Amino acid sequence: MDFSEKTVKENLIFDGKILHLYKDDILLPNGHPAFREYIRHQGAVCVVPLTEQKDIILVEQYRYPMKSLTLEIPAGKLDPGETPLQGAVRELEEETGLRNADLRFIGELYTSPAILTEVIHMYIATGFTAGEQHPDDDEFVRLVTMPLDKAVQKILDGEIKDAKTQAAVLKTALLLKD
Amino acid sequence: MDFSEKTVKENLIFDGKILHLYKDDILLPNGHPAFREYIRHQGAVCVVPLTEQKDIILVEQYRYPMKSLTLEIPAGKLDPGETPLQGAVRELEEETGLRNADLRFIGELYTSPAILTEVIHMYIATGFTAGEQHPDDDEFVRLVTMPLDKAVQKILDGEIKDAKTQAAVLKTALLLKD
Repeated sequence: MDFSEKTVKENLIFDGKILHLYKDDILLPNGHPAFREYIRHQGAVCVVPLTEQKDIILVEQYRYPMKSLTLEIPAGKLDPGETPLQGAVRELEEETGLRNADLRFIGELYTSPAILTEVIHMYIATGFTAGEQHPDDDEFVRLVTMPLDKAVQKILDGEIKDAKTQAAVLKTALLLKD
Repeated sequence: MDFSEKTVKENLIFDGKILHLYKDDILLPNGHPAFREYIRHQGAVCVVPLTEQKDIILVEQYRYPMKSLTLEIPAGKLDPGETPLQGAVRELEEETGLRNADLRFIGELYTSPAILTEVIHMYIATGFTAGEQHPDDDEFVRLVTMPLDKAVQKILDGEIKDAKTQAAVLKTALLLKD
């Protein structure tokens, strides 16, 4: 059986600065009409910055939708025309000041594939040099450094809740064991 | 410094069946006005179903926003008034037919905390009995069973891209090692 859903008509409902909401008319695999509400997003990158001592550099910031502070790896939206690797270099430097990193691609993350097109490209960064942060105008972040093992434990304990951080940090810990 | 952002006015832009889009007027930590576009979502659950032989039961389904099939752990939105544990029992049975499972809560996942309020409550399910699937009317899923180790490898290789699946499966593998 072919499980794919056919687009009958794309309907753009809200064309925002970051979010673009669609409610498309579709046909289900059984041929019945239905609709799908979803958000288009330009994609993003995230980076696990690891020092030679296997410390990880995290960012603490306020996440308005969650009404709380979160501890996350550095990350951000791709700029138009930018490759994921270029975005990873830029976001790492903007949020943490770290430069000249060696970046290793460790896969893609679909954050909420039922409702959101967002794909996050994940990287490990090593061999970087320190520099000055220059976050966006509406971005307020605090750097938090800890051993990678401690970050893994905070994920296992349920203290770190951000999806990309859970996935990329656990992946990094397992990849470095090999 | 207090990093929190103050709500000046909540503005509901689109009130859909699943997605509720807001564009709120806020004040940044430095007191400057700004706005935040985000989606409210009722929350969800996901379950890592593990047999006695340490096989994991995954579901393959078409994800319209991604225009592709994905391999994911069983998951779904919470119904109104339902606790996460009740939702996990229901979704596991609907998507896979598995019943009478012992469920262990392994933490929360914020899928995209900059733009989406969605929280996924993660569980490991063991000790279940087989039964009949009864998915939603617009849901077409195929069950895929494989050793847990193989699913971990597919995540490390970048083949499994869904965020909750990456996070919950890696977490399960590390928790069971302890």
